[in-house]
Amino acid sequence: MDFPSAKIAVVGSGAVGCYYGGLLAHSGANVHFLMRSDLPAVRENGLTIRTMGRTIALNGVQAAASTAEIGPCDLVIIALKATANPMLLEAIPPLLKPNTALLTLQNGLGNEEFLAAHWGEERVMGALCFVCLNRIAPGVIEHFDHGSISIGEFRRPASERLRAVADAFRRAGIEANPVENLLTERWRKLLWNIPFNGLSIAANGATVADVLADGGLRKLARDLMTEVLEAAARLGHQIPAAFADFQIERSSSMGAYQPSSMIDWRLGRPVEVEAIWGEPWRQGLAAGASMPRLEMLYRLLLRLTHAP
Amino acid sequence: MDFPSAKIAVVGSGAVGCYYGGLLAHSGANVHFLMRSDLPAVRENGLTIRTMGRTIALNGVQAAASTAEIGPCDLVIIALKATANPMLLEAIPPLLKPNTALLTLQNGLGNEEFLAAHWGEERVMGALCFVCLNRIAPGVIEHFDHGSISIGEFRRPASERLRAVADAFRRAGIEANPVENLLTERWRKLLWNIPFNGLSIAANGATVADVLADGGLRKLARDLMTEVLEAAARLGHQIPAAFADFQIERSSSMGAYQPSSMIDWRLGRPVEVEAIWGEPWRQGLAAGASMPRLEMLYRLLLRLTHAP
Repeated sequence: MDFPSAKIAVVGSGAVGCYYGGLLAHSGANVHFLMRSDLPAVRENGLTIRTMGRTIALNGVQAAASTAEIGPCDLVIIALKATANPMLLEAIPPLLKPNTALLTLQNGLGNEEFLAAHWGEERVMGALCFVCLNRIAPGVIEHFDHGSISIGEFRRPASERLRAVADAFRRAGIEANPVENLLTERWRKLLWNIPFNGLSIAANGATVADVLADGGLRKLARDLMTEVLEAAARLGHQIPAAFADFQIERSSSMGAYQPSSMIDWRLGRPVEVEAIWGEPWRQGLAAGASMPRLEMLYRLLLRLTHAP
Repeated sequence: MDFPSAKIAVVGSGAVGCYYGGLLAHSGANVHFLMRSDLPAVRENGLTIRTMGRTIALNGVQAAASTAEIGPCDLVIIALKATANPMLLEAIPPLLKPNTALLTLQNGLGNEEFLAAHWGEERVMGALCFVCLNRIAPGVIEHFDHGSISIGEFRRPASERLRAVADAFRRAGIEANPVENLLTERWRKLLWNIPFNGLSIAANGATVADVLADGGLRKLARDLMTEVLEAAARLGHQIPAAFADFQIERSSSMGAYQPSSMIDWRLGRPVEVEAIWGEPWRQGLAAGASMPRLEMLYRLLLRLTHAP
């Protein structure tokens, strides 16, 4: 894949898609955005990224209402909520040619599997985004903090293709770290997201500080981590228990941070219950792990995020 | 203990205390009620029990603002919320003489233990109340359904004293069944209360019908029952697993029933978290049972019922 000539599509133009796609476009890459509700605003005013006191204004953004308008690409960046994956069944095919790569920036487990099942494992790459963003108006993204990504091939070590994509991100000013085992990285991120995002909802709006200050919830968070570590280990991802302790300790500096799932839940947006809790539980269970707390959390979250 | 001459105190004159104490008084027993907020209304208008289309009006109710006014009794019926037990430390002593019996009508585990620890195991009896009541105004109790009690000695088989008390209840029109092992009966009741009362709050207001209709919550309820059965068995209370299945099946006739803890929680009243979840979990744990789901439910409920 040759940059900057490679043609890139961004499917899912929320905060994550607009931020990373916008920075790539700003660096000179050939980026096409699939947009729905924001399309008129972006056609009129372009994309605006406010990042740490600086404003990046992108005019002449290539935005389309359908992937058929975009046509075949070299790289498709998928930044939808995982709950919206079924729409990919129609959106992806017009973007494909034989070597089109699919890069998911989505959370949790199951997204690479979804892409691989439909369009072939060899196309699939994934990235974990460590970033705090908010879409504050149509076409306007606020960037609060962080921004690095860990990027890897799906079930393969890092490749030439992967390094080329990582280089393109870097030229756009994004710290992009190629990883040899993407799924291990996903489990390392889940180790935190499963307890803290989950308990934030199950405990009816508990911030990170609330969970850490409540002895019972803090122990429950650590017990959930133990279950996640066991599942990960059975699936071939060795994560030391000390990393869980470190994550708990490290979290105390986050204060009253509201995990992203808590914000989604409070605002009545879809919560990625399957990607963050359901799929890890099912994969761990299939590998023989005992995960009663994760199962319970998953069942409660399904109800809490779907009940009328 | 001789009835009707035996002197009875009712401590905790909410719906349960007023209903059972009121029926005893109506049958001619010598009943004294400790009352707080309802005292002026009861002194003025007596007690009213509306039961299945019939109204029982009790005038000349013996009601006092302190147990010192009541003085030593033969039987003290305790019908407080378990969360208010600390007030017994002051309220009970003025009621005691050497053979005063203490009968708790409270929910869950730990109440007999509390009374025994402070005033001697030999005094203590307990009863489980199967009744639907509501206090609709000061001194006015509405009785919706059921009403039987299972009554037993604490850590002893049924005694002469116990049978005399059961007979007094029966003369008041209350179905009173002496049991040989009170704690086994408590665990049999907890088998239902732990999952259904607990999930009604943890799933943010799920009625019995909601829990049964949600495949995940229904399985979770049954898994919690399995943990309760294991704990009970390790504590010497053999309850067949088929009884759990029967309880689940039987619950489908309850429809959108709101467990009492759910009503308390919705109205911002104290929820008996320790009696229904904390103490069973601690006792099971001490006996070597594995109860991860109950522990998690307990920790979530502590937070959900106490968070600001």
